[in-house]
Order: sequence, then structure tokens, then C-alpha cells
Amino acid sequence: MADEKPVRFGIIGCAQIARKVSRAISLAPNSTISAIASRSIEKARKFAEKNSFGDRVKLYGNYNEVLDDPTVDAVYMPLPTSLHVKWAILAAQRKKHLLLEKPTALDVVELDKILAACEENGVQFMDASMWYHHPRTAKMKELLSNPQIFGQIRTIQSSSSYTGTPEFLENDIRVKPDLDALGALGDTGWYCIGAILWAMNQRLPTFVKALPTIARNSAGVILTCSAALHWEKEEIIATFYSSMISHETMDLTICASNGTLHVEDFIIPFEESIADFSFTSGAKFVDLHIGWNVKPQKVLITSQLPQEALMVQEFGRLVKSIESSGCKPDQRWPQTSRMTQLVLDAVKNSIELGFKPVQLS
Amino acid sequence: MADEKPVRFGIIGCAQIARKVSRAISLAPNSTISAIASRSIEKARKFAEKNSFGDRVKLYGNYNEVLDDPTVDAVYMPLPTSLHVKWAILAAQRKKHLLLEKPTALDVVELDKILAACEENGVQFMDASMWYHHPRTAKMKELLSNPQIFGQIRTIQSSSSYTGTPEFLENDIRVKPDLDALGALGDTGWYCIGAILWAMNQRLPTFVKALPTIARNSAGVILTCSAALHWEKEEIIATFYSSMISHETMDLTICASNGTLHVEDFIIPFEESIADFSFTSGAKFVDLHIGWNVKPQKVLITSQLPQEALMVQEFGRLVKSIESSGCKPDQRWPQTSRMTQLVLDAVKNSIELGFKPVQLS
Repeated sequence: MADEKPVRFGIIGCAQIARKVSRAISLAPNSTISAIASRSIEKARKFAEKNSFGDRVKLYGNYNEVLDDPTVDAVYMPLPTSLHVKWAILAAQRKKHLLLEKPTALDVVELDKILAACEENGVQFMDASMWYHHPRTAKMKELLSNPQIFGQIRTIQSSSSYTGTPEFLENDIRVKPDLDALGALGDTGWYCIGAILWAMNQRLPTFVKALPTIARNSAGVILTCSAALHWEKEEIIATFYSSMISHETMDLTICASNGTLHVEDFIIPFEESIADFSFTSGAKFVDLHIGWNVKPQKVLITSQLPQEALMVQEFGRLVKSIESSGCKPDQRWPQTSRMTQLVLDAVKNSIELGFKPVQLS
Repeated sequence: MADEKPVRFGIIGCAQIARKVSRAISLAPNSTISAIASRSIEKARKFAEKNSFGDRVKLYGNYNEVLDDPTVDAVYMPLPTSLHVKWAILAAQRKKHLLLEKPTALDVVELDKILAACEENGVQFMDASMWYHHPRTAKMKELLSNPQIFGQIRTIQSSSSYTGTPEFLENDIRVKPDLDALGALGDTGWYCIGAILWAMNQRLPTFVKALPTIARNSAGVILTCSAALHWEKEEIIATFYSSMISHETMDLTICASNGTLHVEDFIIPFEESIADFSFTSGAKFVDLHIGWNVKPQKVLITSQLPQEALMVQEFGRLVKSIESSGCKPDQRWPQTSRMTQLVLDAVKNSIELGFKPVQLS
């Protein structure tokens, strides 16, 4: 490697998720934490103490100081969604590479402004969806791409849910209309939509239709929603269920012409060091239809680093390519985010239109 | 038991599935095969030889002879769906108890005629959905009914599919408009709808809506369809996917407020003697959200008899209660069939109405 110096991160915002990602930055071999900012210096100090950051991490009482710090190469930004467009653009303008929490923006118009700022300033953009970076994800894609094992995708089903406490469902940042107006759709639906598009190799559906069962909190923020995504010509349908009032699920089921894949923890693996998924291929009934010729085959994948550290490492690699080798920012990750946001917007529009279909392609 | 004599079955129709059920009748301790009828005596003879029935089983070249046979207590009827209404009513009128293949009828109007004939003639009705009778199903219901483990159901997802050959998809009885006009919806959707209603304790949804991705064969018979079932007040949504052009699936996922259940072979277990399902309850993330506090718990259920033999045994027990103890026919099974048929009709209507919602309750 031409430049062995690690990518120096500034963290803007001390949300819970920042604890996990700051650990990931420490674990990733090509990254380090340089600074952390909260709305007050006290908050930043508390966060640094809780996470044993030590003296080398600078603490700031406002976000601008991180952006002005020349020792910061990249920012990780776990701010409420409504603040993304302002701070992400400011970060890009100050030439900071951007690892942005999901959902990336309130809508694709905002996201496009962020992406344009990144493009203009030559900085790398990536949203902080970790599961793409787990080696299990690559292994699943390898098998799904094998026409003998899977063939043509027919249907996809995904579910992402957790049970928020009554206090959470009224007062958490993620359900406040002025902070995260997308509610469960932005928080957990983001993953379902991302997983469906991932399975479909980032091809937009022809249209999406939200399904007419919605739960909202007293402020009107979505706590549960579902939608169907349709690829009309190929007669493919994907459905997802996203909720903050259902027991923990992180399901992804993909059924193709020759095979079926099941994974129950695709967003956060049950365990950090080893993860699995199962699949069947060429399943038929035995004579008399009293059983199957094959049972699901479990595939175990070990991971040297947690998926979030692999995400940081990949982001760092791209940053280094730009800084050291003069490469252009990689377009895969911004495009992946944009597709997810586009579909998310369409689902939101469908809900607002009374569950009418919203065309996408 | 007051009457140890077995229930004597007549089988009307020599479909493939009759091989499985005739074996089940032989395996069930309270049942025996007395006669079998096909449209020709040659077909009946071939079927008897193939299945080693021996000399004690009478062979008939038309269905009426079985119905006229006084040694036949009950009939198992695996005829094409369009023939059910005629032959099921004739069977009931001749006081034969009725084990009827699914889908029970082309619509609920037909089914109600069948059920009325059974009621009037005091004979037991049951449709031949086998999975209800597996001990796994009872165990799943026991756990689902435990509010500490599962709590309130939020969403259900079911899938039933297989890959028909091109020849099958054009010429099999199950895709012929004059024989089984319901296609995949009747064949595999029947199970999905049944499983969803089973999970919901046979409560009708408020409305159903077919989803606008349908595949049909050249005769217009449905090869793939999906629908969403909505319980409006409780904000519960169930979706299903039913297909003859997708790889084998028999999935049922139930997500409640406190727990999640997964089963991947609910209709026909992978193995005859042992079946499993898995569930999680009270799942949370560990600190830093780098894993779960629990992993799915696998429950293994052994079965002394195949589920289809348990079905025949239960049917035989009800028949014996009527014949020996003067009990009335049990209403649970006819009601279960009727609910399934009602929802199936609503899905079909929704498709025909251009995927509009169809109210049910």
C-alpha cells in the first residue's frame, strides 16, 4: 500500500449506534478515531469516557469543529435523518469523506443534494448499512448467481422488526416527526428494501404498492408498514414487513426457479464471529409425497472482523484509493443508497396516496 | 371402544394422491380399504396392483358402485375439484362419510351444498389437508397460545410452491379450466390460507386483496398468485405466495409481539417420522447491538404415524362416534374447510376485480 496511514474519522453525533461504529473504527485495520462532536462538550466527554476513547481523540462541543479539523479525513454521521442534508453537505464541502447513517435522507431529493456535494468535492459516500459487508452476504450472492442452484428469482420476502417500549414508541428520535419522520419505514424498512434490491441486483421494480395495514404513534409516525414490489415483465413479487411493535425479525427468504434461500438474522447476525444461512436446491418430493429428497443445507460463514468493521475497512480502502492514488469516488455505494431511497420514497408515496401503486421504471 | 370394527373406506378416483392416502388408510389403526373405483375397471385394477391392495379390496369401474356398496362406511374422494359438488353430495345422500380432497369446491356456494348434504344425512365431513393432524401442528399451537412466549400476532407470511414441468403446467388436471379452474390458488394457496387462518384461530380477515403479480398458463389458469389478508382493527397483516413455477417452499412464519415462529415444511415434513420448527421469544440485542441474546430454538417432534394416517385416524374416530355412540358430526373440520374456501373465493374475486379489496367481515 502506498500510504499506510489510517483514515482518521470524526464522529458527528453521539447516538447509541455511534458506540458500535466507533468500536468498528477501532477494530478496522485501516481506520482510527480522531475526533468526536456532540451538541455539547459534556455529552462528547461522557461518550468518550463510556467508550474508553483515551486522550488521543479530540472532543468537540459542536459539529462544525470536526468539519474544520484538518486531522479528520472522513466523518461518520449518526444524526437524526432530518439533519442529514445540512450536515452531510457541509461535510462534503469541507472535503470530508462521508459514512452516513441510514435512512440516508428524508427523500431522494435531499439525498441527491448530498450525493451531488460528494461528487463535486471528490469525496467517498457510503451509507452505514453493515450487512452488505459481511462475508455471508457475498457467499449468498455467489450461490444466488449460480443458475444451476437458484435460477430465476420468483419471489422475495423480507421482514425487519423489533418491539419498542411504549416510551420508545412515543419519544425516541426515530419516531419524532421533526427528527425521523420516516419511522419504522426508514429504520427497519430500509434494510428490507435494501435486501430485496440486493437480491435483484439493484434493478428497480416496475412499481410498488404499500399494503393497507399501517400502525402509527400519536404523532402520526409509522410504527408498522408493509409493501409489495413488483417487477411486472418477469412476474416477480417481493413483499416486506417493517415494524417497531413486532418481535425481533431480520428475515430474508428468496425463492427462485431452482432453489430457495432462508436467513433469519441478515441485518445483525445472531453471533459476531459466525453466521449462517440455509438453502435448498432441486427439492422434490420422494415417492408417495411422504417427504423431500433434500433437506435445507446450512452454510456457516466465519468472520475475522465484525461486519461493521468490514464496512469501515471497505470505506477506508475507497478513501485511501482517492487520497493516495487519485481514484475517483466509487459509485457502487452511493448508487445502492439511492436505489433504496427511491423505493422507500415510493412506498411512502403509496401510503400517502391511499395505497395506490407508484411507478418506478 | 364400543365398536372395534374399522371404518371401511371406498376410494373414488385413482389420482396420484390416492396412493398416499390409501397407504394412510392401511396404516391408521381404525380404518381399512374396502373398495376402489375409477372411471374404468382397468384403471382401478392397475391402481390396486400398483399399490398391492390384495383381493379383499373390491374394484369398481364407476363411482356409483362404491356409493351403493353397503360395506363402504366412508369415501375418500380425490376427484378433480369441478366434480366434487356432484359426487360429494351423492356420497352424503347415500350416508357415506366424506373425506374430500382440497380444494373442497370451486367456490363456497358449491361447498355449502356439500356441507348441507352432509349435515342433512348425518355424515362426517373433513377435507384432506393433512398437516393439521401432525403433532407438530398441535405443539406449534400450544406455544403460539402462550402469551408469555408469543403474545399478540402481528404478521403471518406463508408460501407454498413447486416447479411444474412445462407439460404439467399446460396439461395436468390441476391446471385445466374445466377440471381445476382454481390452479395454483386452489392447489397450493389452499394451504397458505389454511395456515394463516389456523394461526388466527379461524377468525376471518376484515378484507383480502390479491397482489397484482399473477402468472397464468395458456388457458388462463393461475400458476402464481399472492394476496394480503388484513385484520383491520388489530392492524394484523398476513401475506402469502402460491405458485406452480417456483422452487419447492412450504414456509410459515408467524411474528407476534413477544416471539417469532418459523417452519419451512409445514405441509409435508422433510421426513416422515420427525419434524421440526424453530422459534425465538424475548429476543433482544446484546450490548452494542453486536448480536442477539437468544438464537432460534429448534423443537423436534416425532410422529408414530405419518400425518396422513393421523388424519385418517381422526376422521375414523369421528365416524365411529357417530356410528357407535350416536354423536352428531363434528363441526370443527367442515367449518375449517368453509373458512378456507371463503378466503380463497375472496382472493379469486379480488383478482377478477383487478386486485380490489374484497370485504369478508
